[in-house]
Amino acid sequence: MLESTIAAIEPLDEAAMAEARELHGRLTKPAGSLGALEELSVRLAGLAGTCPPPLPGAPAVAIFAGDHGVHAQGVSPWPQEVTAQMIANFLAGGAVVNAFARQAGAAVTVVDVGVATPIPGAPADPVPGGAAVPLDPAVPRLVGATVRRGTRDFTVTAALTRDEARAGVEEGIRVAGELIGAGAGILLTGDMGIGNTTPAAALIAAFTGADAAETTGRGTGVDDPTYRRKVEVVRTALDRHRPDPADPLGVLAAVGGLEHAALAGLILGAAARRVPVLLDGVIAGSAALAAAAFAPDAVGAMVAGHRSAEPGATLALRRLGLEPLIDLGLRLGEGTGALLALPVVTGAVRVLHEVATFDSAGVAEK
Amino acid sequence: MLESTIAAIEPLDEAAMAEARELHGRLTKPAGSLGALEELSVRLAGLAGTCPPPLPGAPAVAIFAGDHGVHAQGVSPWPQEVTAQMIANFLAGGAVVNAFARQAGAAVTVVDVGVATPIPGAPADPVPGGAAVPLDPAVPRLVGATVRRGTRDFTVTAALTRDEARAGVEEGIRVAGELIGAGAGILLTGDMGIGNTTPAAALIAAFTGADAAETTGRGTGVDDPTYRRKVEVVRTALDRHRPDPADPLGVLAAVGGLEHAALAGLILGAAARRVPVLLDGVIAGSAALAAAAFAPDAVGAMVAGHRSAEPGATLALRRLGLEPLIDLGLRLGEGTGALLALPVVTGAVRVLHEVATFDSAGVAEK
Repeated sequence: MLESTIAAIEPLDEAAMAEARELHGRLTKPAGSLGALEELSVRLAGLAGTCPPPLPGAPAVAIFAGDHGVHAQGVSPWPQEVTAQMIANFLAGGAVVNAFARQAGAAVTVVDVGVATPIPGAPADPVPGGAAVPLDPAVPRLVGATVRRGTRDFTVTAALTRDEARAGVEEGIRVAGELIGAGAGILLTGDMGIGNTTPAAALIAAFTGADAAETTGRGTGVDDPTYRRKVEVVRTALDRHRPDPADPLGVLAAVGGLEHAALAGLILGAAARRVPVLLDGVIAGSAALAAAAFAPDAVGAMVAGHRSAEPGATLALRRLGLEPLIDLGLRLGEGTGALLALPVVTGAVRVLHEVATFDSAGVAEK
Repeated sequence: MLESTIAAIEPLDEAAMAEARELHGRLTKPAGSLGALEELSVRLAGLAGTCPPPLPGAPAVAIFAGDHGVHAQGVSPWPQEVTAQMIANFLAGGAVVNAFARQAGAAVTVVDVGVATPIPGAPADPVPGGAAVPLDPAVPRLVGATVRRGTRDFTVTAALTRDEARAGVEEGIRVAGELIGAGAGILLTGDMGIGNTTPAAALIAAFTGADAAETTGRGTGVDDPTYRRKVEVVRTALDRHRPDPADPLGVLAAVGGLEHAALAGLILGAAARRVPVLLDGVIAGSAALAAAAFAPDAVGAMVAGHRSAEPGATLALRRLGLEPLIDLGLRLGEGTGALLALPVVTGAVRVLHEVATFDSAGVAEK
């Protein structure tokens, strides 16, 4: 599934992009006056292969959740059980991602790819991995697709086997297919996993060659000793595994997390189906680097939702050549930054659908 | 009306702000993880005097339109008639502001305070100045409230008399009252006026003390000779009138425009009624400086929607102590940048309404 998905990913359609640029020049506004929104709409035309591209309707946030063996190294002040407790909060509609999703009319799907502890009050009948995922903005869904109950501690051994990493990626591809099949016009990345900024920092260092101190941030807001420990943990892991950035499955297996692997798959699945995927923060950024290593043209499907406060997020976006739409110092994850950016994406496309031309509106040009 | 409005403007409510900060600390997210959204929601609690503050429902964009005598100095490549033609476009729903307003569910009200040429196909029965303004997101409305048909050329004489400037400000106050009376929970500033970045640059220079070369930008994208002429026009006007920043009515009369004056009034009217006002770009920034000169506490009601590409906009926001929510290089005006930022404002408030606490959700703290 991974190989056929990669093979299906193609470059943006230059003709549709040229058509969108030409249309922008005829709309009733000074040329270039919509700034970054213009090029965004042009890229989305190139992704859809038509101008105007479809309005990104029926948005769907996929929150991949996992736990991390490296949590044992004291990289987070939060107990590991909070991953499962926050999933319960998502399913009850009580988290920030739910509030933002309700506002945006986005469906929320939580995919357990690697949670270590039981989810309190979890539905007795989660959607099984492999089944269709309903797309209902009113009801958050849980998909039970555990690859393993948390990764191994990557300061000691590889976080995942290659097969486990592949299973994570393929679960992401599958979820992309299910959500798009159910009608989603845009996918948004979400994540939950106590400690998951540590594997993200390791992944970003592995893919960009940056130092651990540059890619590691304070996550949920760790104190100085924890931060220093976190940098050392990332450095130790990179020294131990020396992951090869040309082998993304190997990198994900060595220092990744299951939610990171699945998000890489979600991005690949969206790109293969030419549906845009709106990236959240640093976890998404690390997964996007993996997706781009699998298939460079996957970048064409990516829209950077926001600039996370995590330094690694900025490094990842720079490497991908993406400029974020929102830059407000968020560092929450869950998909919150992507959801905040969604109206900007929709607005950029809407301009190509709805705005009158100088000719049609009888407005003089300069 | 101006004096009683100014007298009604009071500081933010510290108790409600403290309550909002305390509530943020109990919600299921790491402290501070929503970045700038947290302080935004705290300020809105302070404005409303209650926590949580009301969701900013029934948004209303007020587009004040006027022409400018200084257009005769060649500061814009667009013919003056485009002001009236674009108003016709707004009323037909064909402009970018209409597309964004439909997406946001915002009502669009165009207020003619100073348009020089006839509006093509204008409704025979615009809402007369002084009458109630219906708040209907589906139908853009025109309010006919002409103070004079364009300002005088301020390189030659004052743009407006003090009485005309006051009439412009009071029309803005009146429109704020009408829109809020009709149910608007948040006002958004919009503007239309060929050449209106030139008076905006002069106003910002007058209120901040910055040089004309720092406050003047390329507006709709003027070429180098026009840009140099524009800077000279602003410098000439400031040298001729030497406006006193402590006398905002005098500054508006000397180098302002009627839409700038009316926007200052809209801001004052919103602040007096403790309703937030979302600022668009450089025209709004210049008007906001005037409003703050009338009533420093009016800044408490202001939310900076975006950072316009115009350099004066950044100077104005810095002087006001405001950080913009969106920074995407827009330079269109009309209210487009404010509308893009609206979901961010609503999202910030929604968090205080809808997100579960650690206690209520059974999530462990660190």
